[in-house]
Amino acid sequence: MKKVSESTVRRLSRYYRVLQVMEKEGEATISSRELAQREKLTPAQVRKDLSLFGSFGTRGLGYGVKELKERIAQILGLNRTWRVALIGVGNVGSALVSYKEFAKQGFLIKLLFDSDQRKIGKNHKGFLIKDVGDLVRDLKENQIELVIIAVPADQAQKVVDQVVKAGVKSILNFAPANIKVPDHVFLRTVNMAMEIEHLSFALVNLI
Amino acid sequence: MKKVSESTVRRLSRYYRVLQVMEKEGEATISSRELAQREKLTPAQVRKDLSLFGSFGTRGLGYGVKELKERIAQILGLNRTWRVALIGVGNVGSALVSYKEFAKQGFLIKLLFDSDQRKIGKNHKGFLIKDVGDLVRDLKENQIELVIIAVPADQAQKVVDQVVKAGVKSILNFAPANIKVPDHVFLRTVNMAMEIEHLSFALVNLI
Repeated sequence: MKKVSESTVRRLSRYYRVLQVMEKEGEATISSRELAQREKLTPAQVRKDLSLFGSFGTRGLGYGVKELKERIAQILGLNRTWRVALIGVGNVGSALVSYKEFAKQGFLIKLLFDSDQRKIGKNHKGFLIKDVGDLVRDLKENQIELVIIAVPADQAQKVVDQVVKAGVKSILNFAPANIKVPDHVFLRTVNMAMEIEHLSFALVNLI
Repeated sequence: MKKVSESTVRRLSRYYRVLQVMEKEGEATISSRELAQREKLTPAQVRKDLSLFGSFGTRGLGYGVKELKERIAQILGLNRTWRVALIGVGNVGSALVSYKEFAKQGFLIKLLFDSDQRKIGKNHKGFLIKDVGDLVRDLKENQIELVIIAVPADQAQKVVDQVVKAGVKSILNFAPANIKVPDHVFLRTVNMAMEIEHLSFALVNLI
């Protein structure tokens, strides 16, 4: 497969959601033009994105909704489930445990960890909170494939180092910290303050 | 100003954070090469981004850390404060109220709203939860400039319509819903499931 940019992956996620809705609505086919219109993109962009993964549209007829949805699911790894651990059961972590979209897309939270002795061993929304001190062992034993970090910024690097040590290759980080990982590990940081900065930028410059 | 892409704004947010750290560390200047290295970008990319806003580096000396930080703050609208309202005090909303990075960057939450009669009128982390039924009036009266949506997906469009009616031009949406706004309103949706899909994509295709 050709190198795929971050923005392409993001657009694929968006296409996937449009196709989910269309399938529910009973639509059988969709054109690149219609998909583009729904997502405020150009048809050329849509065709370019989808051509990355081989041709599977029919000229004049467009794409089969179900077929295209399944193809994108496969590309994004949504045609299977993933074993997820969440570290840090504070405000953000607790919100993420309740976030139903994760399970809907196959990301199944299996373990929760915290460092707070008052939380460890307690039940939280159906999960036993485990001791972050046992992280490496527990991640390995439970074959965790993907970890979500929701610990305070000053603890994030230490925790990530343990996660890497446990052999986990994919990390979603919510701590507002500049984390380092080896090249073979994929790290994605969601910084809510950076998201909101797109809005203030727009208010100052675009509107 | 030239048209600035979403990814450029994101990089500016990242540069801003590097410069904050460097200023704390007492560094006076930074080269495009150093900035690129810290953010795993090419020096050419950094120079291109910064040149969008006029030239303010000195060949051979680089950029003044403080000067560059202040320039980016101005571009991103971080050199002032913004009046923010948050709608939906559930799991995600509650986490966002506690998220200290917002206030640090000048995004000051002034009002909380919910539709749940058991929450309305109650104190939540120092805020009185207001009735979403009074949204238009309260947003106007309190000169809210930016709204964060953390309501369930099926209520999001209705709430956003009210926010638009109140004259707010900038909305950060955490509801996993495909929201429509008029062209003069800037909407940004953060979908945590889409963020995690970058990771499963990486696990399937890159690692």
